[in-house]
Amino acid sequence: MMLSSCVLSIGKEIISGFTNDTNSFFISSRLTNIGIYNRFILSVDDEEGDIVSCIKACLDKVDIIITTGGLGPTFDDITVSSVAKALNKELVFSRASYNRIETFYKRLYDAGKIDSPEMNDKRKKMAYIPKGAIEIENNVGAASGIYLKENGKHIFCLPGIPKEMKPMFEGFVFKTLKGFSDSCILSKTYEFRINDETILGRFIDKLKSSDMHIKSLPTGFDSKIMGVRFTAYGKDHQDCLSKIELTKNKLQQALEQYNA
Amino acid sequence: MMLSSCVLSIGKEIISGFTNDTNSFFISSRLTNIGIYNRFILSVDDEEGDIVSCIKACLDKVDIIITTGGLGPTFDDITVSSVAKALNKELVFSRASYNRIETFYKRLYDAGKIDSPEMNDKRKKMAYIPKGAIEIENNVGAASGIYLKENGKHIFCLPGIPKEMKPMFEGFVFKTLKGFSDSCILSKTYEFRINDETILGRFIDKLKSSDMHIKSLPTGFDSKIMGVRFTAYGKDHQDCLSKIELTKNKLQQALEQYNA
Repeated sequence: MMLSSCVLSIGKEIISGFTNDTNSFFISSRLTNIGIYNRFILSVDDEEGDIVSCIKACLDKVDIIITTGGLGPTFDDITVSSVAKALNKELVFSRASYNRIETFYKRLYDAGKIDSPEMNDKRKKMAYIPKGAIEIENNVGAASGIYLKENGKHIFCLPGIPKEMKPMFEGFVFKTLKGFSDSCILSKTYEFRINDETILGRFIDKLKSSDMHIKSLPTGFDSKIMGVRFTAYGKDHQDCLSKIELTKNKLQQALEQYNA
Repeated sequence: MMLSSCVLSIGKEIISGFTNDTNSFFISSRLTNIGIYNRFILSVDDEEGDIVSCIKACLDKVDIIITTGGLGPTFDDITVSSVAKALNKELVFSRASYNRIETFYKRLYDAGKIDSPEMNDKRKKMAYIPKGAIEIENNVGAASGIYLKENGKHIFCLPGIPKEMKPMFEGFVFKTLKGFSDSCILSKTYEFRINDETILGRFIDKLKSSDMHIKSLPTGFDSKIMGVRFTAYGKDHQDCLSKIELTKNKLQQALEQYNA
């Protein structure tokens, strides 16, 4: 059965339009690559109430939630505690995380880059994780990611800084989810000799189905050519490829007759 | 009172990671510019159930919803009917919209760019709008936008193609909302001589408030300088600017003492 997901980015900089949320775009694309139906992308403020209610709403609708942002040491980094609250879990001290954070700051101190190696409150804060969570190692920054499995749902929390998030996603989240996914989503775009969606649409209506999405990609009327994206949902690559080939050929034939 | 909003982008291409949703980034930024608190960014599939439930959820939480995508002629363009359903409104035929769409296609036909000037079903479909809606003229493409005011809430639907969306946003949505907004959100970033969020955070904690968000912008530990973004919420530009100046100076003084 095809798994479904929600990507949730957390941070005032996203909702305010200060920062373009490239993380959600990247993660959505990668989820599609391994046959996971990414049903929602959400962005919310660093507000506990909004984070908790979004996580609860998503848990009702999808199998997987991946959050980005809000893992750091500052007052507005509240993702981990909000996830714990949404799942009704307590936060517990992680010795492994503490040691890694301590080493992280000690190295910076030894290199003369920061003023103190001491584990102040804000550094310690990053060593608390929801009970039962697995830590996702961060080899670039201080804050670990977390992975929680709860009632068959998977929740991953990653940092918002792309250079920290991406290796953690690729090294842990992608590999983990690839192991769970038994489906494929394949998308291919071909060009056809037509430029009018209102004509092409008639042919698409006859060919589309629940496992074959067909999307015209209009670029204006100055060209006589339009791209059409076929997205197949199936059990594996070959299954999807066959469906796309078949559908593409049918559309090709129909348009040849129309253009004749 | 500060108005709040949600930007909702609709389309399989967004949630699947085929297309980076630059529309939501653009709109969020512009809303912030006129003192509207953009509380959520959402992206959903072209699925009526998901669109309707997201609109209903947003209507409970914000004053303004701006959708992009799903206004065109194809089978998966279902934003208008979904908005009508969410608001329990019937779709009605708009003669003005019909005439504009007819003229749009007739011009293309007369220029030899399309095969037929006739109002086929897919062209006609774009002339139906929720009862009571105002049309937002589209001078680039075929589909009009719509504006609905319902129980004190404002709903705007715009096309997904940025070159159609942007002029409609700027020409209608931005101007309309600017007239309603009596608040200001101002954001300014300054550099400070510190590179460690866990130290800086102690000072930020003492200065932040409900109308002053202070965000450190770490870029690593190789530099001794870090940007800090001050975002003030207030009644007008001068009010926000004064708050930022005051807070920035306090942080400057605190860090000078720390660095001394």
